[in-house]
Amino acid sequence: MIESVDVIGADGRVGRAVSARLAERGLVVAGRPSDVVLLCVPDRAIAEVAAGIAPGPWVAHVSGGTPLAALAPHRRRFSVHPLQTFTHERGPEQLDGAWAAVTAETDEARGQALELARTLGLEPFELADAERPLYHAGAAMASNYLVTLHDAAAALVAAAGAPPEALVPLMRRTIENGFELTGPIERGDWKTVEAHREAIRKARPDLEPLYDVLAEATAR
Amino acid sequence: MIESVDVIGADGRVGRAVSARLAERGLVVAGRPSDVVLLCVPDRAIAEVAAGIAPGPWVAHVSGGTPLAALAPHRRRFSVHPLQTFTHERGPEQLDGAWAAVTAETDEARGQALELARTLGLEPFELADAERPLYHAGAAMASNYLVTLHDAAAALVAAAGAPPEALVPLMRRTIENGFELTGPIERGDWKTVEAHREAIRKARPDLEPLYDVLAEATAR
Repeated sequence: MIESVDVIGADGRVGRAVSARLAERGLVVAGRPSDVVLLCVPDRAIAEVAAGIAPGPWVAHVSGGTPLAALAPHRRRFSVHPLQTFTHERGPEQLDGAWAAVTAETDEARGQALELARTLGLEPFELADAERPLYHAGAAMASNYLVTLHDAAAALVAAAGAPPEALVPLMRRTIENGFELTGPIERGDWKTVEAHREAIRKARPDLEPLYDVLAEATAR
Repeated sequence: MIESVDVIGADGRVGRAVSARLAERGLVVAGRPSDVVLLCVPDRAIAEVAAGIAPGPWVAHVSGGTPLAALAPHRRRFSVHPLQTFTHERGPEQLDGAWAAVTAETDEARGQALELARTLGLEPFELADAERPLYHAGAAMASNYLVTLHDAAAALVAAAGAPPEALVPLMRRTIENGFELTGPIERGDWKTVEAHREAIRKARPDLEPLYDVLAEATAR
């Protein structure tokens, strides 16, 4: 049973939401000793911060792609990665409804990780340590590249003199409809696809490679 | 004032929702004559179907990228493109909250187009005829390629042994948060980006070009 958690990096995007949720649950401790030291620091800082923690408590990180080995020399270790994008403008409710990738090397560690995930309000699933980079690549594609896709689409719509905010209900519904493909490629309408390509080439040639690689992947 | 609309192609994705909405408003007529003949047929069929309509009523289409010239020989013509993705599983409520691109060549036609858009429950904006392909390229990118992006991300997550449905709350929140970029590229963490690339190369090399072009566009 986890009774106290020391969050390191509580002023970051993830750390702020996580520590606010732990505070709601009465689990935050100011400084050590605690049952769990939870690192919410940038990926590149994890190894150094972990190495500076005196042995004893569980040491965990919330990184998506970082292996557990980064938590050396600690052996009582695990990872809980909230599969969500966080903003400073919102609070711990950002965790609700999100899933979490849990990685652990022993049954005891797994138990700690699952308990912490559920305490945070996350729905945990297990993820093998070696698969973390592949999993994280998928997560980054789904969220970060969704931003890129939107920005490119909004640029084209704006260049055509239309309001980019009109894309938002379309994108929401695409998700609501379970990612059902509609539109020219679904209809095999290559003439329309070629008209898109020509229009992009004239207005925003820098976006043509993005359009092309997505068109090709969609057609497959 | 539009008092009657004859929908051609009422069994298609868009046509079904549109004709159901017009029926709710008491505007559907079985056969002509009607105030408006509304073509909800595939893009490639518009010109042929339009050419077969006896002159008299307003003739309009709901295509995103097709120019008004496809409605020849009719001069009383316009277009209303609902910026939404439609499924056969849902009804006219699919139109609610969506925007619509309205294209017209005269004030009278514009009045008809705006009235029809609002009758359908759409929020209209004007779009120049010459800009339709560029606008439609943006719309296709936002919706169709969102499907492709999701499918690629889900494939990576599944290959890592994690549940692809875990991506859905992440993608919804990315939209809710106004497409605020987070993650490794936002942090300038190129080591993580390189780890993604290596993992994709091993597990799903076919998706590496997609990852690369999106990473490059995101970094810009």
